[in-house]
Amino acid sequence: MKFFWHVLLTLFLGSMLTPSGVLLAQEDAPALNPEDIRTVKAIFDEVLVSAESYRLLDHLSNQIGQRLSGSEGAAKAVAWTKRVMEDYGFDHVFLQEVMVPHWERGNPEVARIGGASGTDLRVLAIGGSVATPEDGLSAEVVEVQSLDEVAELGEARIKGKIVFYNRPFDQRNISTGAGYGGAVDQRVGGASRAAQYGAVGVVIRSVTSMFDDAPHTGTLSYADTLPRIPAAALGVQSADRLTEALRKDPHTRLYLKMDCRWLPDALSHNVVGELKGSEFPDQYIVIGGHLDSWDVGQGAHDDGAGCMQAIGVLRTFQKLGIRPRHTLRAVMFMNEENGTRGGKKYAELAVQNNEQHLLAIESDAGGFSPRGFGVSGPDAVLEKMRGWLPYFDHNTVTFFRKGGGGVDIRPLHQAMDVPMVGLSTEGQRMFDVHHSEHDIFENVNRRELELGTGAMAVLVYLVDKYGL
Amino acid sequence: MKFFWHVLLTLFLGSMLTPSGVLLAQEDAPALNPEDIRTVKAIFDEVLVSAESYRLLDHLSNQIGQRLSGSEGAAKAVAWTKRVMEDYGFDHVFLQEVMVPHWERGNPEVARIGGASGTDLRVLAIGGSVATPEDGLSAEVVEVQSLDEVAELGEARIKGKIVFYNRPFDQRNISTGAGYGGAVDQRVGGASRAAQYGAVGVVIRSVTSMFDDAPHTGTLSYADTLPRIPAAALGVQSADRLTEALRKDPHTRLYLKMDCRWLPDALSHNVVGELKGSEFPDQYIVIGGHLDSWDVGQGAHDDGAGCMQAIGVLRTFQKLGIRPRHTLRAVMFMNEENGTRGGKKYAELAVQNNEQHLLAIESDAGGFSPRGFGVSGPDAVLEKMRGWLPYFDHNTVTFFRKGGGGVDIRPLHQAMDVPMVGLSTEGQRMFDVHHSEHDIFENVNRRELELGTGAMAVLVYLVDKYGL
Repeated sequence: MKFFWHVLLTLFLGSMLTPSGVLLAQEDAPALNPEDIRTVKAIFDEVLVSAESYRLLDHLSNQIGQRLSGSEGAAKAVAWTKRVMEDYGFDHVFLQEVMVPHWERGNPEVARIGGASGTDLRVLAIGGSVATPEDGLSAEVVEVQSLDEVAELGEARIKGKIVFYNRPFDQRNISTGAGYGGAVDQRVGGASRAAQYGAVGVVIRSVTSMFDDAPHTGTLSYADTLPRIPAAALGVQSADRLTEALRKDPHTRLYLKMDCRWLPDALSHNVVGELKGSEFPDQYIVIGGHLDSWDVGQGAHDDGAGCMQAIGVLRTFQKLGIRPRHTLRAVMFMNEENGTRGGKKYAELAVQNNEQHLLAIESDAGGFSPRGFGVSGPDAVLEKMRGWLPYFDHNTVTFFRKGGGGVDIRPLHQAMDVPMVGLSTEGQRMFDVHHSEHDIFENVNRRELELGTGAMAVLVYLVDKYGL
Repeated sequence: MKFFWHVLLTLFLGSMLTPSGVLLAQEDAPALNPEDIRTVKAIFDEVLVSAESYRLLDHLSNQIGQRLSGSEGAAKAVAWTKRVMEDYGFDHVFLQEVMVPHWERGNPEVARIGGASGTDLRVLAIGGSVATPEDGLSAEVVEVQSLDEVAELGEARIKGKIVFYNRPFDQRNISTGAGYGGAVDQRVGGASRAAQYGAVGVVIRSVTSMFDDAPHTGTLSYADTLPRIPAAALGVQSADRLTEALRKDPHTRLYLKMDCRWLPDALSHNVVGELKGSEFPDQYIVIGGHLDSWDVGQGAHDDGAGCMQAIGVLRTFQKLGIRPRHTLRAVMFMNEENGTRGGKKYAELAVQNNEQHLLAIESDAGGFSPRGFGVSGPDAVLEKMRGWLPYFDHNTVTFFRKGGGGVDIRPLHQAMDVPMVGLSTEGQRMFDVHHSEHDIFENVNRRELELGTGAMAVLVYLVDKYGL
């Protein structure tokens, strides 16, 4: 793409050089408030130029890094985000105590085709898994495509084996979340299903849209009534190598050694920063993300991005001198990844203190360009928000959809009927990086992250000004 | 982000796990044709699973690489794309001869603060620049923010100096194309403006949204009546270093050595592949990109992506057995970057042969997720296309806007009133990579690229079926 001098002006009306979406949208919605148009522009200008969320995320990712619940990284992140919000001079910054599950990966996992002295595969324990025996375990492998297939094969084929769930991420879904959702049952429920038929361990094909060999972890859920067996995720290429070995020799054995462990619940915290409302200080708008992450990569997209955006929303109000009518709360929820204890604790305290919440927003779909918002609440809320669509440039938010929210704000939504909103992002790259070594700061784009901050700040501004 | 077993279903309605946008959109547009809905799904399924555009782009980027007009790379790309389309068995594959400008960069450029033995800066000659004297040139530097400032300073301050245009890319524009368009006059017209007042050379701050030090090239336009002086682009950090040096010493000299040269015009080609129309074989729908690229990086986004998507559209029709009514032409235009000779030649031949064109589409905004289409043509065409919006998932195309197209199809549009359409992409990263060493295959995401192929294939399918 080039721009010749004499066609520059023409091209300003072209495909890349678009006039402001706000102005464009006005054609369809002439009733937009000029003051709001100015404020929306000021908000996006501020986030794009200051790039404050991005600067914060750099520190969180590169100076603190991994933050699994109960870890030293999580504790550091709590202390640091509290200090950041205090240093900004937010009106009130406080912690909410919450006891969280505490799981550790231990020494690097080992998976080898053919036994203890076989060929190394790339592998990560699935979060929450029990360890193997100290010397590892070795067993023949049964490859399946689904939990149902395990039930069909039954004890005769499964007992004493390692079950290998290999159903791939379905690339056909335009929504990568749907691709993920269509395969993740293997990671979450695969271990207990296999244990039900006597398996001694489980490996899965990593749930990812990528084709490289980085394994992707995540949580599992053991059924209370069944034996807990070790479960691990193989890189996609490693999974293919195991398939190939099984094709050549159906009696191929896999050696698995995992050192992970459960520790007693640990004391941790949600971190909350407030800008006090001028008219309704006791009515809250929550802007949230989760501060914990998996223990690989840096949790940059998942969900350092959402946390830094939440702080960024309040910081933008402060910087532009927009005094909110309601109290704005940036909430860094703890323990989304393996327990949701922070979200539950926040809701519990809100009920206990009879706090009125106008709205809760969560950003937990990665620090990518915003595409829209999903809304769970009365239809009237959705309709009101749709009326605000023309305020958004068409390169940012283009829809408000029914349904959506976030794992951390769901307990509040359910306990107190608080409308909840989730930021939808341009998510094609999300499951390339999700829960893996690829989820690092270098894979976050500054402008994409900041547009998310801006989109949420605009929605909060409008909700605060016009109510719901 | 995690997905617990028992909330999976709930989350399918959530922010990441969205139901099909087609189904959603149907609420608003119940008149959609079920056959078309199925075809649209089949098209996106095919491109996402086969990832054929991505596979081709891998070859073009990594096996052929840079393709500046007149270069060996450009010739290889012509031969290879012709063979690719022949190997697919397209109905007719042919070349259009076109004479193109031939400029070469020569040896790596040198820019040093303080003179020939000074501190190295990162630099690239601006495409089309003349060389410096063989031993380089050294002169004091005058930093300016605009072409107007050069005129204001006048000969008294400019004569004998190197003018340093340092106005940055304005990050405030949500459209990065607007940010680019607001700064690129320095690259295109800066040299002649400076020459008008007696400058001996020009350096510019690279026109990019990034803050690293990779210089970004592009074309310039010399005025016929003025001396041609050497012009180069500094990396952004190098530009900052030069500013800092000038702050300390306003008489700071810059040493510049450039070896670039103009050669006689070279014979090159547009490459055209056709699927013949079943009803209107003499009416054409053009799907285009430009095959030439700058001579840094691999031209992966700009515009290898658009070319491979154009081939991908025809390949998808072929693979799915969709026989078009009109003849579809995938056109790899030559010489977009520094002359548009290919686009002009195509239009010239279309006029000469009195070819009827129904529509021309170009993808030259990078291989990022599609966001929408810009349409230049009668309002009725725009309105008709808007009626097709519900066929697109909301994670793909969300708007048809007035205005847009492409540099290569503009001559056809102007010569024969052919409606032209440009693919608008999620463009936040475009000017991070554009015309620089960062424009490589590794920076293209498979799914994002393929969604662009799919979006264009769907539009072509609907235009072919329903006309305009």
